Amino acid sequence: MNDYSSRLLESAVSELSRLPGIGKKTALRLALQILKENDSYAENLGKAIIRLRSEIMFCNTCNNISDSEVCEICSNHKRDENTVCVVEDIRDVLAIEKTAQFNGLYHVLGGIINPIEGIGPNDINVAHLVRRVNHEDINEIILALPATVEGDTTNYYIYKLIKTFDVKVTTIARGVAIGDELEYTDEITLGRSILNRLPFSEIS
Amino acid sequence: MNDYSSRLLESAVSELSRLPGIGKKTALRLALQILKENDSYAENLGKAIIRLRSEIMFCNTCNNISDSEVCEICSNHKRDENTVCVVEDIRDVLAIEKTAQFNGLYHVLGGIINPIEGIGPNDINVAHLVRRVNHEDINEIILALPATVEGDTTNYYIYKLIKTFDVKVTTIARGVAIGDELEYTDEITLGRSILNRLPFSEIS
Repeated sequence: MNDYSSRLLESAVSELSRLPGIGKKTALRLALQILKENDSYAENLGKAIIRLRSEIMFCNTCNNISDSEVCEICSNHKRDENTVCVVEDIRDVLAIEKTAQFNGLYHVLGGIINPIEGIGPNDINVAHLVRRVNHEDINEIILALPATVEGDTTNYYIYKLIKTFDVKVTTIARGVAIGDELEYTDEITLGRSILNRLPFSEIS
Repeated sequence: MNDYSSRLLESAVSELSRLPGIGKKTALRLALQILKENDSYAENLGKAIIRLRSEIMFCNTCNNISDSEVCEICSNHKRDENTVCVVEDIRDVLAIEKTAQFNGLYHVLGGIINPIEGIGPNDINVAHLVRRVNHEDINEIILALPATVEGDTTNYYIYKLIKTFDVKVTTIARGVAIGDELEYTDEITLGRSILNRLPFSEIS
């Protein structure tokens, strides 16, 4: 007898447990839950997963996830085509869209430079970004990468590549999060937020 | 624009987040991971889920999960047909099998009596158990339900139903900590508690 008394169950558990953060026990719990649900649920879930992988496209322009060759953001003429926000991955696009504070376009790198994980400049969408800066009518590039060493490295690498073009390069503000107490903010963040202080009258 | 810039992604996230313990953020992380994996992974995962639900069977005898009409345990003639261990669900069968301390058959109730969640005696496989006691050559019923109020209630309910038959009713020893689920108990404790089972009538 195999561990799960059913090859079907074993196969589902083994596939589910390949997902990040899902161990064998969680996978078994999920599989048994799938069995408890309506007939249609497993069908819907399975098909949604298969279609997601087989039919999804990545926007030709910004590399965002999309159902068509050009994503809904890039094809929306109400958005400001002159401002492009550079992000690590799709989740960052979703996070920034949720703020409703940005009306420009995006450029999804699909990763950031990380020598320890073997991710170099050629593994992310940088060359494509340079082409966009060169050919599109872009006035400003906003770098919105993580506030980590890897993010800073990638910021600097991109900055060096595009500073020769006639384009303003900015980064999102780093500082004390809204609602945070100063005493609980880490020293580096607090120090940066003092160095990068802004005239009070300029604050929006 | 919908929240995820892609209907395919939205649909996968919405189906995944119906699973227990998986919120929208985790579902999104899983969906994006599925996109990063090989082409074949999404196909394998999706098909494993669909097949699990559409092809799985429950053993006619013990109600355990099975790939055929009678499960591998019930159809194994090397096992002791005279001893039946009553458990709440399939995970408990897997947990007890892992201890390698039990060589009898099982009876999977598919739940325990839980008035708060609206689960009564008719919602679990008790009537079938009584039929088995009546028609099969069973010498001993081992009650291996959770050490909770609901487990004790179910134990007592089953004991009352089958005490008139010529069958010994035992419960696993209370080595299992009160309030704990079987699947999270370490193998040695669970194994011991099977070896040290006591007649139900002697329990205070």
